[in-house]
Amino acid sequence: MAQRICVIGGGAAGISAASMAKRTNPEATVVVCTEFEDVAYSPCGIPYVLGREIPDFERLFLAGPENYEQAGIDLRRETVVTEIDAANQTMTANGQVVPWDTLIVCSGWNYLLPDVPGNDLEGLTFVKNIRRGIELNETLNDVKKAVVLEAGPLGVEMLTALAHRGIETHLVDENAWLLAQVADPEIAEPVQESLKELGCHLHFGTALKSFVGSNGKLTGVETSEGIIDADICVIATHKEPETTLGRSIGLKLGSTGAFAVDERMQTSMANVFAAGDCVEVPQNLTGVAVQGLTGSHAMQQGRVAGANAGGGRRVYDPVNIPWGMVGGQVQIGGASFGESLATSLGIPYVVGVANGISRARYFPGVQQVRVKLLAEPGTGKLIGGQFVGGEGIKERADFLAFALKRGATLEDLAWMENVYSPPIGALYEPLSVAAQNGMANL
Amino acid sequence: MAQRICVIGGGAAGISAASMAKRTNPEATVVVCTEFEDVAYSPCGIPYVLGREIPDFERLFLAGPENYEQAGIDLRRETVVTEIDAANQTMTANGQVVPWDTLIVCSGWNYLLPDVPGNDLEGLTFVKNIRRGIELNETLNDVKKAVVLEAGPLGVEMLTALAHRGIETHLVDENAWLLAQVADPEIAEPVQESLKELGCHLHFGTALKSFVGSNGKLTGVETSEGIIDADICVIATHKEPETTLGRSIGLKLGSTGAFAVDERMQTSMANVFAAGDCVEVPQNLTGVAVQGLTGSHAMQQGRVAGANAGGGRRVYDPVNIPWGMVGGQVQIGGASFGESLATSLGIPYVVGVANGISRARYFPGVQQVRVKLLAEPGTGKLIGGQFVGGEGIKERADFLAFALKRGATLEDLAWMENVYSPPIGALYEPLSVAAQNGMANL
Repeated sequence: MAQRICVIGGGAAGISAASMAKRTNPEATVVVCTEFEDVAYSPCGIPYVLGREIPDFERLFLAGPENYEQAGIDLRRETVVTEIDAANQTMTANGQVVPWDTLIVCSGWNYLLPDVPGNDLEGLTFVKNIRRGIELNETLNDVKKAVVLEAGPLGVEMLTALAHRGIETHLVDENAWLLAQVADPEIAEPVQESLKELGCHLHFGTALKSFVGSNGKLTGVETSEGIIDADICVIATHKEPETTLGRSIGLKLGSTGAFAVDERMQTSMANVFAAGDCVEVPQNLTGVAVQGLTGSHAMQQGRVAGANAGGGRRVYDPVNIPWGMVGGQVQIGGASFGESLATSLGIPYVVGVANGISRARYFPGVQQVRVKLLAEPGTGKLIGGQFVGGEGIKERADFLAFALKRGATLEDLAWMENVYSPPIGALYEPLSVAAQNGMANL
Repeated sequence: MAQRICVIGGGAAGISAASMAKRTNPEATVVVCTEFEDVAYSPCGIPYVLGREIPDFERLFLAGPENYEQAGIDLRRETVVTEIDAANQTMTANGQVVPWDTLIVCSGWNYLLPDVPGNDLEGLTFVKNIRRGIELNETLNDVKKAVVLEAGPLGVEMLTALAHRGIETHLVDENAWLLAQVADPEIAEPVQESLKELGCHLHFGTALKSFVGSNGKLTGVETSEGIIDADICVIATHKEPETTLGRSIGLKLGSTGAFAVDERMQTSMANVFAAGDCVEVPQNLTGVAVQGLTGSHAMQQGRVAGANAGGGRRVYDPVNIPWGMVGGQVQIGGASFGESLATSLGIPYVVGVANGISRARYFPGVQQVRVKLLAEPGTGKLIGGQFVGGEGIKERADFLAFALKRGATLEDLAWMENVYSPPIGALYEPLSVAAQNGMANL
């Protein structure tokens, strides 16, 4: 009998898991259930439509459902899985019993409503599902003032988008600077300046106390520093893994509260895999479990889970987590972690910093690229790095993640070969200069 | 007695050698002799001033001579070294005998005048020295038609510059496509299209036969395909190593005609080092000697030679040669070599190609990035790669050179982590997609 593979979830992890499972075992029946109306769109694009940098939501769709059907995948939209029966290897989807030999749980994440008074008011919004995004886009036409709760990656994107749209926008964040989970203050600072130039009001070190409103509608956000008037509040807090269904069959959770999986993305139960924001994976240098990464991580994890579910043999390596984005009008990114996190983890380090440039210093459009590298004292082995400004931040983050994976040292980067061409690269690559400076501190 | 280190040549190699020697041994007397009026400017910027993308030549100067004097370097400009006495460890510079304990030869390269009739006509020009560049900039005001001889990197820059300036510009090149030494035809093609859009006339497969003129001035370039009218001809042929002085003391040359050096940049003679375009170094994958690389290679070689001359211990690794540039309005680059060179070297390979994108496919400014990777059959170990289009070509070339140095495989790139953020990076990194496609061909 041909293998039956069921995938719960139609996001990046679920769709890539299904596609890879079918490719690995073309004989298999592959079913994908998603509670949503849509699949294979780019949720990461929603802030840019809201911010009117992208003209419409239609562009965010990658492929229609028919593409998956053509690939032989049984894609079931608006289909809610309410129960899994692990003993009998079935699940109940929209009331129908669906049998499986192998299950892949890609149940994603949720933003949690903050547990403060007034959290039932109309005007508290999440940016996640595209249909809700389309509604929010309409709502924003009447919004004068907005609060964004927490300056993680989505929060920074939404600050940029709302300000770009001309809305008076306030950030409320308990941290002392932006992107505090991954970036150090001096790296975040140019982005903060850019957001201020766009008109954003940044309230750091500020705690949420309650949401205030009248007639069931939000009118303001009460913080430790007073009330900020607001028509909406975008909740951009930590991505909490959605594990309800998996827990119901006893799948083990890890230290982050997400599913614990092995290197094959298999859960604690044979024949049940998981991928994406509902799982945790080890960080490469520390082994510490991390969760809530990016869409490209979800996609790669899905590919690994799908390959193994289909009978292949594929390992998902510990992650070095390259990241990058545009905040205000400034690029920022990095890989692994920075000084603040290293300090709190008790990891010793030396630092190498440089204020490099993106092109020859005399070429039009040249921009500063600030680099900060962390390395192990003595050996100089890289621990992580961050960059801000200029161009090529995404590509440098990818490079650094690869260098970290390969155990590269400051010396390796200090003596790296680099392209020198006035319109696209300076004589001194900023990464290399930072590494040279760091070597003096070893 | 303190060490006396003499450097012949004031280009990127010579200046960085002197600086590093002085830093390594602050007690040393470090003398730099250059025949030219200037040091520490960016010759690579000259085409962009000529093309009016950079407003003036003054910007190309990095630091005045006084900076080197402040660093304790005895910098002698307009000083021609006419003789080296290896037995007595002296050299004659502007008639004066200068003693040395350690010599660093950074005598650079020359463009050779083509050995065809009419090569003494006024109007044949090289783009190399900044004073000649300033004169050429004046001359170009009266130039209507120009020929560029050979489409190597400088040739492509000059085609772009002259066309940008509004001059009718013709390329004469015996090869069948542009940048044929490093790029394959399908990678070069978008650059060729862009140059044509700028109005360049590209004559490939066309041999130079003679220069024609009247009253001692160039009026045309005779080729295998007929005469092309021209007021000037830019000679952008291969960079020939300048080895006259070194040969006079018996320094050994390698297969390219440049100085053979060991991994410390030491020549065949004890206490004589060499760096930059007058030396050859091994290519990483093949061990084949290469010469005439980039300014950043000259600078790094100079640092190594200077460190060792100053009593340090520093190795220059075999090169993977990341390269990149803008031709017309298109970025092109790569690392190591392409299919054409692999074929002529008899190196077996498989190919992985992809037409990726530089941002999310719906984000304004997204551009195609064409990637072509070569890898060893069986193992999938990377041999080289090329890219064209889009953004981030320089950074990808740096990445690929690093991956090559680390012996990375197609599989490593296929499963690399990458940043996904709509304004700066696509879900699928083009390098990774090309690697995935290449794996299917292993």
